[in-house]
Amino acid sequence: MVDKPLNITLFGGGNVATHLAKNFLNLPGYRLQQIYNRHLSSIKIFENRTGIIDDLSKLKPADLFILALKDDIIVPFSKKLKDFDVLTVHTSGSIPMAALQTRRKGVFYPFQTFSKDKSTLDFSNIPILIEAENKRDLDLLKNLAKSLSKKVEVVNSDQRKAIHIAGVFAANFVNYMYRQAAEILQENDLSFDLIKPLILEVAQKVQTLSPEQAQTGPANRGDIETINRHLEFLKQSPKYDLYKYLSELIINDTNI
Amino acid sequence: MVDKPLNITLFGGGNVATHLAKNFLNLPGYRLQQIYNRHLSSIKIFENRTGIIDDLSKLKPADLFILALKDDIIVPFSKKLKDFDVLTVHTSGSIPMAALQTRRKGVFYPFQTFSKDKSTLDFSNIPILIEAENKRDLDLLKNLAKSLSKKVEVVNSDQRKAIHIAGVFAANFVNYMYRQAAEILQENDLSFDLIKPLILEVAQKVQTLSPEQAQTGPANRGDIETINRHLEFLKQSPKYDLYKYLSELIINDTNI
Repeated sequence: MVDKPLNITLFGGGNVATHLAKNFLNLPGYRLQQIYNRHLSSIKIFENRTGIIDDLSKLKPADLFILALKDDIIVPFSKKLKDFDVLTVHTSGSIPMAALQTRRKGVFYPFQTFSKDKSTLDFSNIPILIEAENKRDLDLLKNLAKSLSKKVEVVNSDQRKAIHIAGVFAANFVNYMYRQAAEILQENDLSFDLIKPLILEVAQKVQTLSPEQAQTGPANRGDIETINRHLEFLKQSPKYDLYKYLSELIINDTNI
Repeated sequence: MVDKPLNITLFGGGNVATHLAKNFLNLPGYRLQQIYNRHLSSIKIFENRTGIIDDLSKLKPADLFILALKDDIIVPFSKKLKDFDVLTVHTSGSIPMAALQTRRKGVFYPFQTFSKDKSTLDFSNIPILIEAENKRDLDLLKNLAKSLSKKVEVVNSDQRKAIHIAGVFAANFVNYMYRQAAEILQENDLSFDLIKPLILEVAQKVQTLSPEQAQTGPANRGDIETINRHLEFLKQSPKYDLYKYLSELIINDTNI
């Protein structure tokens, strides 16, 4: 006896929705039944492989609704689905599960940064953080997550918020540091290429060392002379304050 | 006719010295003649492969002295070598070439973060930034650098300082962001492993996109609601101020 495939309906046309859709289309045991988006243009690439709709009245019965939508429309959109007896999950790091206005609620949060242009994203190394109200729904999400990724964790909404904040530091703020480096190099007629190997090495280092062990640099070794030389160099720059602030934080952390 | 190998003497027993020594020992056309260090213990691993000394009176004639020393001892140490007619370079990002007290001066700066424990570091993708006072010395350094690395650039001392500062942002401050993430995860009973794939992906993204194009996150999209939720979460934490400050900087940058 062969189990019937589990029917998934995806909502959204952004990065996360697109990458999930591509993966669901090739996932044994699951059927991507429909993709809904307000504008069909964003999901038109899927029209030959699944049903694409921009009208909720065309929704077919499904086993799972996945709202891969922007944070600020997840809750209002979920209200439109309140009459369905379908497990409905969002894919957001920062919206609590309980904020969903549907009958059955859950979260399916792939913890990675997504760019739509990357052709097909391999989910196998992307942690998927799930949450549900009862064991049956959690098992459904766990099975789906495990068929995509080797790293599946059940976390509550508070923990998910913590992970999201950690991600802001480790991704968004990190990228902002890369931007400062890029600007400094450009202002001095130097190519950003020069710093790319360093960027990779620093990211690779913390795959095996803790960031605390991996910390280096003038502030970490209390090298005030170098810090002052750098501040002197930056004194006309808006980066002066940022350099000073972060160096002081590192010095204070190190001294503890 | 075969050219005589070029004789290199290395000074230092730290990370940079160790990795350079390992690479020089296998470099055709070059001979690592001696390694000097104040304490023989740090360079004892090389005793069967080259001369190790802790006494400058044992220095043999050489074609190149490389001072792979800590920033604060480069200048005082170079004074001890002032009577040698040997091209003498340091490996530092932040010391000007002119600060060397030797007769012939230069810089040989591998732009990477070094950990001594990594067995053998492959220099081929590490940019080496060189500087010298005349063409002959520059050519010598260029040949040596090119036999180690595919990426060799001639930069002046001001540019090198700019690169070093860019490195503080892209490596040291970046790692400090990783530390914040690690602490937030730990405080919420979550493994740092969860964030490792994200860290790698963000570093990989800027290998092909500019950091400006790669910027994402609540601050970048002006998502004040998420920022406020995160600040609320962090309000008892010393990370509150850092999160707020960096978010404001990103919002202001984005608005320009």
